[in-house]
Amino acid sequence: MGNSRTNRIDPEPDAPLTGHDAADSSSTVDFEQYRAARITIIEEALGKCVSEPDGAAARLFESMRYSLLAGGKRIRPVLAIAACEAVGGGPRDALGLACALEMIHTYSMIHDDLPCMDDDDLRRGKPTNHKVFGEAFATLAGDGLLTDAFAVLVNMTPVGIAPATTLDAVAGVARAAGSAGMVAGQVIDLLGEGRAIDIADLEALHGLKTGALFVAAAVEGGRLGGAGAAQLRALEAYARAVGLAFQVADDLLDVEASTEQLGKRTHKDSERGKATYPGLLGVAQSHRLARSLLDRANQALLSFDGRADPLRALARFAVERTR
Amino acid sequence: MGNSRTNRIDPEPDAPLTGHDAADSSSTVDFEQYRAARITIIEEALGKCVSEPDGAAARLFESMRYSLLAGGKRIRPVLAIAACEAVGGGPRDALGLACALEMIHTYSMIHDDLPCMDDDDLRRGKPTNHKVFGEAFATLAGDGLLTDAFAVLVNMTPVGIAPATTLDAVAGVARAAGSAGMVAGQVIDLLGEGRAIDIADLEALHGLKTGALFVAAAVEGGRLGGAGAAQLRALEAYARAVGLAFQVADDLLDVEASTEQLGKRTHKDSERGKATYPGLLGVAQSHRLARSLLDRANQALLSFDGRADPLRALARFAVERTR
Repeated sequence: MGNSRTNRIDPEPDAPLTGHDAADSSSTVDFEQYRAARITIIEEALGKCVSEPDGAAARLFESMRYSLLAGGKRIRPVLAIAACEAVGGGPRDALGLACALEMIHTYSMIHDDLPCMDDDDLRRGKPTNHKVFGEAFATLAGDGLLTDAFAVLVNMTPVGIAPATTLDAVAGVARAAGSAGMVAGQVIDLLGEGRAIDIADLEALHGLKTGALFVAAAVEGGRLGGAGAAQLRALEAYARAVGLAFQVADDLLDVEASTEQLGKRTHKDSERGKATYPGLLGVAQSHRLARSLLDRANQALLSFDGRADPLRALARFAVERTR
Repeated sequence: MGNSRTNRIDPEPDAPLTGHDAADSSSTVDFEQYRAARITIIEEALGKCVSEPDGAAARLFESMRYSLLAGGKRIRPVLAIAACEAVGGGPRDALGLACALEMIHTYSMIHDDLPCMDDDDLRRGKPTNHKVFGEAFATLAGDGLLTDAFAVLVNMTPVGIAPATTLDAVAGVARAAGSAGMVAGQVIDLLGEGRAIDIADLEALHGLKTGALFVAAAVEGGRLGGAGAAQLRALEAYARAVGLAFQVADDLLDVEASTEQLGKRTHKDSERGKATYPGLLGVAQSHRLARSLLDRANQALLSFDGRADPLRALARFAVERTR
């Protein structure tokens, strides 16, 4: 992805069209190339984050690697790097943040899947961590990934970045992932099962459970890339919209896609009595909501130049993905 | 506690003697005053670390507060502050570190007590977290405390401390608590139950499970207080010895003390087939080991002045405590 909208890489002639206009299609192709390239450096770095230092606790590392290196969309780490690049940073300026966020996201899935929580057997097409390693190891693998994430954030962030900036990123990630952020969202989700909640409650829930880490990715990624205060506010508004759009899309996929397609059990939300966007708004209205959130995300980036094109494309990916 | 050994506060006339000489007794009285004063500021600060920002997830905070504010010896946070003061820092320079370490220690106990781990019902004389709040909340309260600890470490450390120093402390704490430290120790502990392990294995286990956080308390506390490289090495040697002595004392208490005295179930190590120091060395030899570790801790501090007296007294407290 170039420095402005004008030097965008041309789409490959045989690139699949997605039903949108040619400009959209071009952007999609660009983004797939961008995303693949960023995922390559992210996954290489993630592998190093869970390489065991010595022979002790080998099974712990096996358990951590099983979930962390299981593929997945890598949307949070790509978002962190794209936000950093959108304001002029290099991809490696946000690589420590990217890995930390993916480790935190992975820990949260391992713990959420535990029998005492959502009790899920399948994740990304594979048995969940506790089905393979047992509950004790799944608990500890989650604990290890969460803790190590903060060491990775500090140690993998380039020394050229001001320590005060990295420190702000540490605090921002901890706040987003902790008891006033993602963990609170998980609690509200647990307590809400089977209860009547309205669309405002659902937005608040997802703002914590999913949105907080999206916002941390965009804002702390931007911060590490050298964003000013106005840019940070814009990135926050962008990420709030994308995080929610991502969740609306998730709910729609749970209704519309197959277990094979998603690699996890579908229709589980309704079975469990969880409130969803399609459940509250209907499928058609949920699609409209996702589209309007996508517009809101793009509006937030109006003052950004072509370096923010990956962020724009990522917003569309969050809504239009098929898994 | 004064700035040198000469201006030590006189013992109260009716201070209980502990069977050692008068100088020892004086030091014990001083330390109890020092410890009580430091615990006061630590517990006041901990209360603020788990004050809920709004009405959402109230039960999560109740669960976190239940375990974090349940008293306890507070040995790690006192150690962090004492190490900071031993090299000339003020107590509040290490208060963020102290709270972070106690939050991490508390999370590790909540998760260790879970049915899938050690399955304990009693902790500090009260039902364990999951017995009161259920397994899901206990898991999430632990996750919240662990994550929030890093925000507290950053946000409660005074702005006068160089960001690069605080960043080193973040990395040090994460490394000590993570998959190459405390979590690895827990894994080795779980895997070792019922297996034959020797005294070297046991020392390695406790070096990770208990020692790593003790070392982080002393080294990062010293760092925040302005310690030089030689002082940091001395504090590390001190803390390794104290951490191990603390564990030997713990094993001895499990054999010699009552459930009422400890506020947790005793004799559980042997019932569970866990290796212990008394089990491997016998009771008398274990007492001698604890005493020699105490000597080693004091040796490490030979170049420190009277400001390290609380560290010296803390080492003795780790060995001679009765709960």
